[in-house]
Amino acid sequence: MPLTQSQIAEIDAHRADIFDTRRPTVPALEARLFQAMPLLDHGFVRVVDYMGDDGAIVQAARVSYGRGTRRVSEDAGLIRYLMRHRHSTPFEMCEIKFHIKLPIFVARQWIRHRMANVNEYSARYSVMDREFYVPAPDQLAAQSDANRQGRGAVLQGDEAAEVLAMLREDAGRNYDHYAHMLNEADGAAHDPSRQGLARELARMNLTLNTYTQWYWKSDLHNLLGFCALRADPHAQYEIRVYADAILDVVRAWVPCAHQAFLDYRLGAVTFSAQMLAVLRRRLAGEEVAQEASGLSKREWAEMTDALAASPAAGELA
Amino acid sequence: MPLTQSQIAEIDAHRADIFDTRRPTVPALEARLFQAMPLLDHGFVRVVDYMGDDGAIVQAARVSYGRGTRRVSEDAGLIRYLMRHRHSTPFEMCEIKFHIKLPIFVARQWIRHRMANVNEYSARYSVMDREFYVPAPDQLAAQSDANRQGRGAVLQGDEAAEVLAMLREDAGRNYDHYAHMLNEADGAAHDPSRQGLARELARMNLTLNTYTQWYWKSDLHNLLGFCALRADPHAQYEIRVYADAILDVVRAWVPCAHQAFLDYRLGAVTFSAQMLAVLRRRLAGEEVAQEASGLSKREWAEMTDALAASPAAGELA
Amino acid sequence: MPLTQSQIAEIDAHRADIFDTRRPTVPALEARLFQAMPLLDHGFVRVVDYMGDDGAIVQAARVSYGRGTRRVSEDAGLIRYLMRHRHSTPFEMCEIKFHIKLPIFVARQWIRHRMANVNEYSARYSVMDREFYVPAPDQLAAQSDANRQGRGAVLQGDEAAEVLAMLREDAGRNYDHYAHMLNEADGAAHDPSRQGLARELARMNLTLNTYTQWYWKSDLHNLLGFCALRADPHAQYEIRVYADAILDVVRAWVPCAHQAFLDYRLGAVTFSAQMLAVLRRRLAGEEVAQEASGLSKREWAEMTDALAASPAAGELA
Amino acid sequence: MPLTQSQIAEIDAHRADIFDTRRPTVPALEARLFQAMPLLDHGFVRVVDYMGDDGAIVQAARVSYGRGTRRVSEDAGLIRYLMRHRHSTPFEMCEIKFHIKLPIFVARQWIRHRMANVNEYSARYSVMDREFYVPAPDQLAAQSDANRQGRGAVLQGDEAAEVLAMLREDAGRNYDHYAHMLNEADGAAHDPSRQGLARELARMNLTLNTYTQWYWKSDLHNLLGFCALRADPHAQYEIRVYADAILDVVRAWVPCAHQAFLDYRLGAVTFSAQMLAVLRRRLAGEEVAQEASGLSKREWAEMTDALAASPAAGELA
Repeated sequence: MPLTQSQIAEIDAHRADIFDTRRPTVPALEARLFQAMPLLDHGFVRVVDYMGDDGAIVQAARVSYGRGTRRVSEDAGLIRYLMRHRHSTPFEMCEIKFHIKLPIFVARQWIRHRMANVNEYSARYSVMDREFYVPAPDQLAAQSDANRQGRGAVLQGDEAAEVLAMLREDAGRNYDHYAHMLNEADGAAHDPSRQGLARELARMNLTLNTYTQWYWKSDLHNLLGFCALRADPHAQYEIRVYADAILDVVRAWVPCAHQAFLDYRLGAVTFSAQMLAVLRRRLAGEEVAQEASGLSKREWAEMTDALAASPAAGELA
Repeated sequence: MPLTQSQIAEIDAHRADIFDTRRPTVPALEARLFQAMPLLDHGFVRVVDYMGDDGAIVQAARVSYGRGTRRVSEDAGLIRYLMRHRHSTPFEMCEIKFHIKLPIFVARQWIRHRMANVNEYSARYSVMDREFYVPAPDQLAAQSDANRQGRGAVLQGDEAAEVLAMLREDAGRNYDHYAHMLNEADGAAHDPSRQGLARELARMNLTLNTYTQWYWKSDLHNLLGFCALRADPHAQYEIRVYADAILDVVRAWVPCAHQAFLDYRLGAVTFSAQMLAVLRRRLAGEEVAQEASGLSKREWAEMTDALAASPAAGELA
Repeated sequence: MPLTQSQIAEIDAHRADIFDTRRPTVPALEARLFQAMPLLDHGFVRVVDYMGDDGAIVQAARVSYGRGTRRVSEDAGLIRYLMRHRHSTPFEMCEIKFHIKLPIFVARQWIRHRMANVNEYSARYSVMDREFYVPAPDQLAAQSDANRQGRGAVLQGDEAAEVLAMLREDAGRNYDHYAHMLNEADGAAHDPSRQGLARELARMNLTLNTYTQWYWKSDLHNLLGFCALRADPHAQYEIRVYADAILDVVRAWVPCAHQAFLDYRLGAVTFSAQMLAVLRRRLAGEEVAQEASGLSKREWAEMTDALAASPAAGELA
Repeated sequence: MPLTQSQIAEIDAHRADIFDTRRPTVPALEARLFQAMPLLDHGFVRVVDYMGDDGAIVQAARVSYGRGTRRVSEDAGLIRYLMRHRHSTPFEMCEIKFHIKLPIFVARQWIRHRMANVNEYSARYSVMDREFYVPAPDQLAAQSDANRQGRGAVLQGDEAAEVLAMLREDAGRNYDHYAHMLNEADGAAHDPSRQGLARELARMNLTLNTYTQWYWKSDLHNLLGFCALRADPHAQYEIRVYADAILDVVRAWVPCAHQAFLDYRLGAVTFSAQMLAVLRRRLAGEEVAQEASGLSKREWAEMTDALAASPAAGELA
């Protein structure tokens, strides 16, 4: 369970209060505001605040005095145009803030997206919780043979059991030693004869699957950049589930920008100059083989994959 | 007048709608939301949207599950601590969006603050308005003798009259030629025998005091950085009036962070290692002369100014 | 002429000195270091410093202890892979610094690329030169009918002559009034009976085609982002010539990254999910009409253009 | 030992090559280029490349055509002026690139400095080395009583021995299990009956004191910002040793900017508006007690500390 009873009560109390505002408001997002979407075994994503809606994108693009919105179809057309032509600044006019609980090794990937604001729980200042990520059995994958940074088949039988036991026991033991070294005065096993190691030092004994949490705030443009990279099938599963959850929030928040993103970014493919040359020849009726294509085998395979039947954009939504 | 009747009507219509929200809401800021604060002769600043309040700063600093606020005095103490020790990330958790109308030469200074989101009215795409800044007589200052980038005494008599006339006439003539070269089809003086110069070219004939406008969005940390530089007495008057207006918005929005900013940034002074040495000697009762201080004449004057009687922090507020 | 004799002498003196270094060095770029490439009527781009080469990209990607380079073909393959898969951080490991002279209206577009370092000549502190951009006759284009932010046919005859005269005279007169208002003590027409207007005020009388200059420093990743947008045919001509010159510098500096950029970015095309669906149908032998394609007319035209015969990637280089 | 024999040989080979360049060159930095400065038990910092010198700061501030440097004392005066008045852009014109080996928990603090370029060794792609940080006995500190994020007295006797043993054993065991789960084909204990866990999963079993490494590149302005925060006595020891080493590099690289940084930033103190009021009263001969000062006890103590005798700026250098 990612949340304690008292945390749930805090969230519910927060949700109970309703205020008046003149600001653009999105009922579909208000409905789920503050609520935690559980992820992995102890993680979550919850929206803490937001600024703007689909209308705020066109309002800024038009540098409007009032709302700046027109007919729904006209606004949608403008948003789609802006997305297709990679305009970035109008999408920067929407902002969203999340509270996220995630394993440290995921946090280390995540933080590489620099254009965001972050406040992380401090293990220098506070004591970490005894929570660590252990993969579900169907995510316990072998190293991929084909891809140095990918996963292969799911581990089975004794090997799977051994791995799960190791991950669980090592994280647990290291946490218990962490707590022992800390020897916090209000701890159950406090030993007054020991001083207790500084928190900023003791934390180094924790494993990388220990959960941390942070407040993370981003504008919509950079948020979509995050999703484009991390909701991609090549992203590691443990960060992809967060990107998928965020993308689901984006759908509730700015449905029009979300659909444009699916059509022009996530569901789109970029063909190199050489691939374009091949495409032109094929559309002109020519048979083109990889050897005569100017493409490497890997690029040929990437092009072939991109052109293979795939879910239509509508289904992506 | 910075606004037309139809623009005022648009703003009023926008202000009339009130929505329900669970988000942190600041009534003092809601009260002035969307309204234009007039500045200079045709400029304005108006708040278009905001995210967060004083409570959002402590909520993020505490990585809270609920509101994260405690007693008012405790929250204020934390905000003051964070400001004093130059913590930046909790202040990044508040965000604000402005619609600003300003002369181009001011916009060119302003844009040097890179950590913000901007959507500017496009003179490549649209026709500019016939509005340009002409200083009020009491701002028509001579070049400073002492400071290569400052102002001296106010110009008087014929010189003042000539300058005002030149600024007004040159800007007006250049705009009229701009409109003539454009030869817009819906213009009053449209001449069907001429094609009209491309907007992206014609704009180059405008003067730097022509008004432009933009949507500008910033987090509170970077906004305060802007104010620290631009509300400073050394900033050019024409940008300082904008920074002062923004600081007034900050006071309504996050009063606690605002007071901490006055006390620890805007009203604070940094003493160099050498100045500290002088201070220590003087506090120990020693008379110290500039020549024996290790400070240059300029630094000595800066220190002396800083230590001279000045408005108390309370009065700054 | 963009440079005075004394500026040329300064540059030549700078070029004459040769030092020893252990740093990665690019002879093809050293050969043109500091030299100004003239652009437009008074502008230029010149490389002032650089850090890294093609090898620095792979060295960082491999987090190497030594040079980190292997066989040329292997390094090239890695750079192409990184570019194709939109890796950004290894390209950020190369850095370049330019001195650029450009019209103010171009500078205003340019500065929107925030991820760079800039030091601009200060018209608050110094007096501007009497230089302004006037388009060559073949660049004096009418407003496009099809594209609100583009150019149409070149102006002819009286209209062209009138526009050129206006641009030239308005910029000249405004500059002369600027100098008159300044009334600099060392000016030819100094009038001791006038105080002279502050430089920070007088500058507002200048036109947007006045030349300014700055030092501009960027990493290779962001530089390529600049080129992707500004060397594009849709970019305004007056900034495109700068992007083209910079791209030529990139070719001398990091030839391998340059070629990968042409193949995978500048010469590449992104097809939306809907376009991909059309492509698949066409490759399967089906005739697809726009009406039945799921594409708007504009998108259909964009796709058709992209698939039309175009210069091969090799020719781009 | 932080480096293997083959790594040292790689570095030495790299150091042996000398090239010609027209770029600004700093002999004192060239002398130590590529060499590793050892830190902690297995870490290091080494300079991999640099751009610019003290002269590049004034060259950019003056937007020069040539070197832009004048008399040494004049350049130094300008650099000191720029530092004192918090000008940032001229310092951004120098750039430096490091290769750094550091414990993961230090890397997590470090990465919060967003304005830098980073390429980290990938544990998703590669196998980590068996190296982890264990504090030296004199750094094995208890939690501070006074400061929730600081250290107190050094642990002694049995407690110290137990902590050291735990840190060493837990990190070692977790690494061994990591290697076992990986079951790499070229590993000493490869077991062909097991598939081996994906590297991107196995890494989560490592402890936070495991060493990682990265290429890290920053401009001088942001580098000094890093040093101001991390070379501060309140920074955690394990990151402070890195900041100290970097500051030593800065001294060799840009001695003039370095001295200005010591005088105006690292050795300087900012007094709040309330502290200034107290200072003024004391300089006027008044005795001021904390209770009547308008300062909290904590602020009073901070002011008293700042005014107490401390190393002179000269000694700081």
